[in-house]
Amino acid sequence: MTRTNTQYRLAARPVGLPAASDFQYAEEPAPRPGEGEFLVQVDYLSIDPAMRSWMNEGRSYVPPVGLGEVMRAAGIGRVVESRHPAHPVGEVVSGTFGVQRYALSDGKGVAPVDLSLGEAPVHLGALGYSGLTAYFGLLDIGRPEPGQTVVVSAAAGSVGALTGQIARIKGCRAIGIAGGPDKCRFLVEELGFDGAVDYKAGNVRAQVRDLAPGGVDVFFDNVGGDILDDVLTTLAHGARVVISGAVSQYNSEQGVRGPANYMQLLVNRASMTGFVIFDYAARYGEARAELADWLRSGRLKERTHVITGGVERFPQALLGLFTGENTGKAVLAL
Amino acid sequence: MTRTNTQYRLAARPVGLPAASDFQYAEEPAPRPGEGEFLVQVDYLSIDPAMRSWMNEGRSYVPPVGLGEVMRAAGIGRVVESRHPAHPVGEVVSGTFGVQRYALSDGKGVAPVDLSLGEAPVHLGALGYSGLTAYFGLLDIGRPEPGQTVVVSAAAGSVGALTGQIARIKGCRAIGIAGGPDKCRFLVEELGFDGAVDYKAGNVRAQVRDLAPGGVDVFFDNVGGDILDDVLTTLAHGARVVISGAVSQYNSEQGVRGPANYMQLLVNRASMTGFVIFDYAARYGEARAELADWLRSGRLKERTHVITGGVERFPQALLGLFTGENTGKAVLAL
Repeated sequence: MTRTNTQYRLAARPVGLPAASDFQYAEEPAPRPGEGEFLVQVDYLSIDPAMRSWMNEGRSYVPPVGLGEVMRAAGIGRVVESRHPAHPVGEVVSGTFGVQRYALSDGKGVAPVDLSLGEAPVHLGALGYSGLTAYFGLLDIGRPEPGQTVVVSAAAGSVGALTGQIARIKGCRAIGIAGGPDKCRFLVEELGFDGAVDYKAGNVRAQVRDLAPGGVDVFFDNVGGDILDDVLTTLAHGARVVISGAVSQYNSEQGVRGPANYMQLLVNRASMTGFVIFDYAARYGEARAELADWLRSGRLKERTHVITGGVERFPQALLGLFTGENTGKAVLAL
Repeated sequence: MTRTNTQYRLAARPVGLPAASDFQYAEEPAPRPGEGEFLVQVDYLSIDPAMRSWMNEGRSYVPPVGLGEVMRAAGIGRVVESRHPAHPVGEVVSGTFGVQRYALSDGKGVAPVDLSLGEAPVHLGALGYSGLTAYFGLLDIGRPEPGQTVVVSAAAGSVGALTGQIARIKGCRAIGIAGGPDKCRFLVEELGFDGAVDYKAGNVRAQVRDLAPGGVDVFFDNVGGDILDDVLTTLAHGARVVISGAVSQYNSEQGVRGPANYMQLLVNRASMTGFVIFDYAARYGEARAELADWLRSGRLKERTHVITGGVERFPQALLGLFTGENTGKAVLAL
């Protein structure tokens, strides 16, 4: 049986927004597993803002994707051929399989997926890195206490929507920052946020102050740029700023802009802390179990935005993250 | 007995470096204490970079000095007239007396000075806010562990010189960043720093990397700007950046520049935390006792830069902080 692999390789390092021409589409026969290897047919790819940062030269928390290499992506798939004792044919697995239909693996970084906890796409969202990032970033780094005010940016995105809801579950007030009235309504009416700030309506600082007159105790930032600077001026004493991402800066052609209001950390005796989710690998299990409980009980809702059309649609799917057309977790179905 | 008070009042809010014309010199009869008040003859004034930030409009960690008000300054003096039961004539006291020869007080914020711990100017330096800032900022916020590498900026300044020495006392490697070979030699040869980086020689990043090949565990920053950005690229995993000040930015005419490399906090799982020394008031005593012990035993050295000439010399003394001509704690003798 001959399988045809379809894939996108990184062809150029974009300046500004990525374009289809930054990727090269290729079709080739799928590889055959050697001894100790197996072949995964990838069914779903996670589409994440961090992908843009992996396209830049220079090491971030992971090395950049090399020119000519298959674009990095987390995915879920099924083992279709195996010469690996621990990964039999039929097993559903998650891993960093790349933007391709078939991926060869030796098992490193691959984990079985427990479909009893949730459907496959959910394992790329609430039960995947999005959920884990929200969970550990908020609870371990943000350390919110009941009654405190948690603000999250890119709140209608996958990580943000989960972060606000987890804050609510933990007894906090949750305020989301998102673009446009529809997303803001979604946060409050569908997800139960206590308030929402529409950054497209301007004056984020005043909007946050109105909703958090006692100051912001935890700011979970996915965005950077102006929004980070605005929220820095609204911090409560002892506030924690969690640096989860900087999606506003990944496409910047002028280089990253630092937070000019960082001295508010001094004024407010506040801290700004970064984290990398991989450090929590030993605790993924406990977090997934709790996230799955919340999903089952309906306390945590996930909206998955499944994009169809297969590998070919990858460049548009990625660009969709940066044009704000996406609500919830973006997943590409192959 | 009529005493003549000499003083400087804030006359204008400078843009960029402060000038003598931003202050108005005044002579007037010293006030007489009413019931519950006392008069202090101020003998020494602390000259601090933070003074520049108090001249700007807008609240920082303290309100700005109002136009027409006596310029704020910490000082040491002697009670010369008293109608206050707790502060008899002859008592040596510290407080925020302002840039003037005589200050009226109701006792609020005034503390007796224990000259057995050190001479009066030392109570404005190693036993005053400089020492307390170095002590609590390094030990409580930076939390260095023995064997770790501590980098401090403005290391030949009052706070910086003490911070590096305390790091050494606690078993850390101390690296100072200062301007010019003389200051760098002073840090290593006189104060026992393990290394010094001359920022005027360029490429701070490479210099720090050479001296801290394993990464910087604690960065105690008094400076901000380029130096903060450079050191952010040299952090070790789990590093703590202590925001003590931003002297490079206080005179900026373009507004404060934020640290463009702040995403290194994420890459390195690091934190950046601000603090205000007043929060530690309840623990000043324990810190002063330990600092005094270290001074007595010679483990901690302080160089006091006493400027003579009285109140009249205040504007030049302040400017000297920003032109880099100062080494150690600047004190104006009245």
